[in-house]
Amino acid sequence: MTLSIISLPGAEACTGLLARKLNANRCGLESRRFPDGEIYLRVADDVRGHDVVVVAQLREPDAQVPGMLFLADALRELGAGRVGLVAPYLPYMRQDARFRPGEAVTSRSFGKLVSSAFDWLVTVDPHLHRHKVLDEVYRIPAAAVPSAPAIAAWVHQRVARPVIVGPDEESRQWVAEVADLAGCAHTVLRKLRHGDREIELVLPDLQALEGHTPVLVDDIISSAHTMAGAVRKLGAAGLAPAACVGVHAVFAADAAALLQAAGAATVVSCNTLPHPSNAIDVTGAIAEAVRAQGEALSRSGS
Amino acid sequence: MTLSIISLPGAEACTGLLARKLNANRCGLESRRFPDGEIYLRVADDVRGHDVVVVAQLREPDAQVPGMLFLADALRELGAGRVGLVAPYLPYMRQDARFRPGEAVTSRSFGKLVSSAFDWLVTVDPHLHRHKVLDEVYRIPAAAVPSAPAIAAWVHQRVARPVIVGPDEESRQWVAEVADLAGCAHTVLRKLRHGDREIELVLPDLQALEGHTPVLVDDIISSAHTMAGAVRKLGAAGLAPAACVGVHAVFAADAAALLQAAGAATVVSCNTLPHPSNAIDVTGAIAEAVRAQGEALSRSGS
Repeated sequence: MTLSIISLPGAEACTGLLARKLNANRCGLESRRFPDGEIYLRVADDVRGHDVVVVAQLREPDAQVPGMLFLADALRELGAGRVGLVAPYLPYMRQDARFRPGEAVTSRSFGKLVSSAFDWLVTVDPHLHRHKVLDEVYRIPAAAVPSAPAIAAWVHQRVARPVIVGPDEESRQWVAEVADLAGCAHTVLRKLRHGDREIELVLPDLQALEGHTPVLVDDIISSAHTMAGAVRKLGAAGLAPAACVGVHAVFAADAAALLQAAGAATVVSCNTLPHPSNAIDVTGAIAEAVRAQGEALSRSGS
Repeated sequence: MTLSIISLPGAEACTGLLARKLNANRCGLESRRFPDGEIYLRVADDVRGHDVVVVAQLREPDAQVPGMLFLADALRELGAGRVGLVAPYLPYMRQDARFRPGEAVTSRSFGKLVSSAFDWLVTVDPHLHRHKVLDEVYRIPAAAVPSAPAIAAWVHQRVARPVIVGPDEESRQWVAEVADLAGCAHTVLRKLRHGDREIELVLPDLQALEGHTPVLVDDIISSAHTMAGAVRKLGAAGLAPAACVGVHAVFAADAAALLQAAGAATVVSCNTLPHPSNAIDVTGAIAEAVRAQGEALSRSGS
């Protein structure tokens, strides 16, 4: 079966890397907007009988989602075989329950939309919290590719005497895995609450960090407030300026400046969302997962 | 059955008018965006056992569509009965065929999405072209409310000795109907092509217009280029400055200025999309259609 790959607007860089790694035909997509904002899409190459990988960049997801669903429909109408989605950053993983009465459980609704349009999904380190696995919200085969090996390789190559530090307890899962793969120690900052508002970050074992370069790792950098606080805390403790690593570079407008002002030595991210900080390539692991989806589906005869 | 009505962001004005006309409970909606652009939605009032009308403003539709679908899911999960959609401006009616190989037929895909989420649809004068009726793309009961009676009433009240003029052949359907209801004459400008680029507008029967105030009527005003050309043509022929009426005020940034510069006496629109030019209220006709949907569904026992 011939494999074609097609980029939705904004995912071109990732698509180019994946096309080479998967030895897939790069299929063009013509896209523009009508005066009222409607999207126009045209698949520029023949996909008849091809399995097709759609690559989507889903920061600010809502404006992308209709086009993503329309493209899946169009590919099927044009005779494609299986149509899969690579969304390196998977949105709508946060609201996975009704915390207050009346809330829309968007993780479930978004999962339903994607599952109705695509045959499989590959993403990188989704924000799994109450959901433990993607299968709870996606009824199609869904693979969560870990970024830890690529981050560990970057740390190993670029940082002398590293120690991996998690900015808060929630980051422990990434931090422990990266440290393990990079062959170094790790620790996680604790939040100490003083009254209603004030939060103090506490370094549990300062001595273990002395003489090492701290590498802060978190899954999403968005406002960067938590990570900036951690950078300042480590600096105040007399450690070398910290390197900051985010899996997904959501990055609010002033996030990079905030980290720089806090004293970060460097700020890098995986290339799951296009951003100037992208320095860690995870498309190797994505390509492996795409191949595995294809093989699993072929075996199951679907 | 209790009827509740809820506005998606941007449709509040129309929702308020409809709530009064339908004597429906106004149900609140809390809405904000997460840092990566994901939408958060919370239905603020109890809808258990209520039929619910969702009102959506669908200019720049893509950013609204996911929230619209998520809200329908949430309302059902919260125990609502039938959930209908009032989208006074219905997007995605343009691309109703594959004109060039590879094009996404977005009218079909959008119709499928809406039909999977809602029990019925009410809209105002959709851009029907190759599709003759909404049922060709919507598999739920779908009503197209005509704006002509409200426009004719406005013309009758506001314009002395009116004659309704269509800026091009495509507008003939609206123009003839409005003229008929307003009890006045109508005509339609013809486009005469000179070579590849140059288009001349031709007035077919100038004498019939003399001594009358021309009222240009079109379904969508977006760039306003066509209508501005018509305003200039009528002015150059020595007629009184034209009034411009659009059903749907899509209005590109400079559209209103363009019409003013061309010499329009006034520019008004129906309140299907919120815009400073809204002067013609079509919510009476929408409310009637909503009531009819409810009654038809009750009779069919669904």
